[in-house]
Amino acid sequence: MEDIILNAPSLKSVIHCGEGSFKRYAPKLGGNIFIVTDSNVFALYGELIKQIFANAPMYILPAGEKSKNRTQLFQIINKMIESGVTRAYTVVALGGGVVGDIAGLAASLYMRGIKLIQIPTTLLSQVDSSVGGKTAIDYLGVKNVLGAFYQPAEVIVDPLFLKTLPAREIRCGLGEIIKYGAIDGDIYASLCENKNRLFDLKYLETVVADCIRHKAYVVRDDERDTLGVRKTLNVGHTTGHAFELFFKRKSHGEFVLIGMFYELFIAERAGVCAKDYADSLRLLIKKVIGGIPAYENADKAARFAKYDKKNDKQSTVSLIVPGETGKCREMKMPIETYVREIGLCAAEIKGGLC
Amino acid sequence: MEDIILNAPSLKSVIHCGEGSFKRYAPKLGGNIFIVTDSNVFALYGELIKQIFANAPMYILPAGEKSKNRTQLFQIINKMIESGVTRAYTVVALGGGVVGDIAGLAASLYMRGIKLIQIPTTLLSQVDSSVGGKTAIDYLGVKNVLGAFYQPAEVIVDPLFLKTLPAREIRCGLGEIIKYGAIDGDIYASLCENKNRLFDLKYLETVVADCIRHKAYVVRDDERDTLGVRKTLNVGHTTGHAFELFFKRKSHGEFVLIGMFYELFIAERAGVCAKDYADSLRLLIKKVIGGIPAYENADKAARFAKYDKKNDKQSTVSLIVPGETGKCREMKMPIETYVREIGLCAAEIKGGLC
Repeated sequence: MEDIILNAPSLKSVIHCGEGSFKRYAPKLGGNIFIVTDSNVFALYGELIKQIFANAPMYILPAGEKSKNRTQLFQIINKMIESGVTRAYTVVALGGGVVGDIAGLAASLYMRGIKLIQIPTTLLSQVDSSVGGKTAIDYLGVKNVLGAFYQPAEVIVDPLFLKTLPAREIRCGLGEIIKYGAIDGDIYASLCENKNRLFDLKYLETVVADCIRHKAYVVRDDERDTLGVRKTLNVGHTTGHAFELFFKRKSHGEFVLIGMFYELFIAERAGVCAKDYADSLRLLIKKVIGGIPAYENADKAARFAKYDKKNDKQSTVSLIVPGETGKCREMKMPIETYVREIGLCAAEIKGGLC
Repeated sequence: MEDIILNAPSLKSVIHCGEGSFKRYAPKLGGNIFIVTDSNVFALYGELIKQIFANAPMYILPAGEKSKNRTQLFQIINKMIESGVTRAYTVVALGGGVVGDIAGLAASLYMRGIKLIQIPTTLLSQVDSSVGGKTAIDYLGVKNVLGAFYQPAEVIVDPLFLKTLPAREIRCGLGEIIKYGAIDGDIYASLCENKNRLFDLKYLETVVADCIRHKAYVVRDDERDTLGVRKTLNVGHTTGHAFELFFKRKSHGEFVLIGMFYELFIAERAGVCAKDYADSLRLLIKKVIGGIPAYENADKAARFAKYDKKNDKQSTVSLIVPGETGKCREMKMPIETYVREIGLCAAEIKGGLC
């Protein structure tokens, strides 16, 4: 598959996609490598990692979201200093979103930034988080509150790693893929056409590259998320994040889908999105996660949206909702209106109106 | 005085220089301000700060180099979170190099970067560290090992703050100013012409702006210090840093001058720098710090140069030395040669040969 080039203002990032790309490109990364991975990935691919990277120094994070914290960040840095990592080294982040986020931040801070390569191993990180340079840790209960925009020089996206992923992780990645469907007409058409093979790895290989290509343009035009362009990537995320904070349990990608499902009702009622189009997106969402929960406490959960970084102030909520094929719109409303709307959505879902 | 514009690839940075600039520009920074300062600056200027910034939330670092550490960085961040700092806030770093470095890093990390204003209060930070976006903390005994390139949107350089500086702090800043003399022919000419009023605040106001103007071009062309252009700012720093690590006691700027003094002998012996020019630079250096120490252990101290970030590998040392007026050259040599050369320099100084 052809490389995708992300011409970000700060650095050109080359994204190698497709089956076989790991074994083709990883050995070319050269000698001075420092690897960050996690315990799950290492259990599955430890032998392969040793085969490709020989005795490169490595830090293995405990698997899971909780590792995206300050303590682990400094454990990585300690290991880099101990291993004598210099400016001539490259950090390889081999794992899912947590590994990519924390290793990317470590690479950006070490000697004010050394070369970074992302090798995402989950569908979510392949389709979204490994590309575009957002790195971060959570701190004092605030998600991604400390981080940097730091582009990887290369990203290697190989479906090899998806073969060992649990179905739930695939659903999680599909959440972000359907999000791209809501902002890119071609991806939407592809998803509708292939709605019965969304879990097929051969199909995912193609659609992942399409999503990355879309994201590459968005990031090129708004690398630091200040111009409004990159905001479009947040479809469904306002409600998704609020539910994630309140209900926990499900994964980020699933909550993005649930958030989009709820927000589609709001967009429809406001006349921002036509019923047919909203229905077809809801169908795709249900293909991925089956039944949508009609949360009893949806309105309580919605109050967490006031902490969203997209808001100008805590009293106003900003939603990015699908408008028509390939187009999104931003809806701003007082928090009380939003909370009421979300409550109505939950009632509609409960009543089986969708 | 006219503003200096630093057109860095990542951000345009506007530098306001001259008497009165603090009272003119600081009140225009708007409402959402978070201040970082230190106990010395607050003791001297607390009233003025309150007058200009009203009740803006503030973190006061304990004064001194030792505060440039991880604990203080997270204390600042804790205070930012507690104070409800959002993306709409501006971090004002009001102090010397330590404040600028650590507050700059906090601003760069917080929500992946919020607006930063540098208001340097020492001669060293005015002439050098507040401009150009280098931020950092020390960690595990390694200087500046964690940091970011993060441009301030504005820098306010007001000689007001120099009036309360101890003479030693002025000498420290003059170290960097003479460094600029070694890389910029006009600054060299100005320093030679004014060699008897180097400590005069009126003269310093002018020459500081000249140095910043020089640095603005260098940083524009090599923001991330990867192309060799920004390396020229490291004249005297290899030996200066090595001595700083070994002998401690003196300030960074004084060690830069001592380092340049020693390295001038090496450059002269290698035929890289003519005796006349070397003599005139040595004269300027002596005007600032008087007697140059003929260290007994100079060769031992020189071994610390192997940790220099400029080296490609630890066995080779890189020196940036004056060549002719307005021009520097890089000299690379095996560490053993360098150690021997530094020993010879100490002997020459001891013998009163300079």
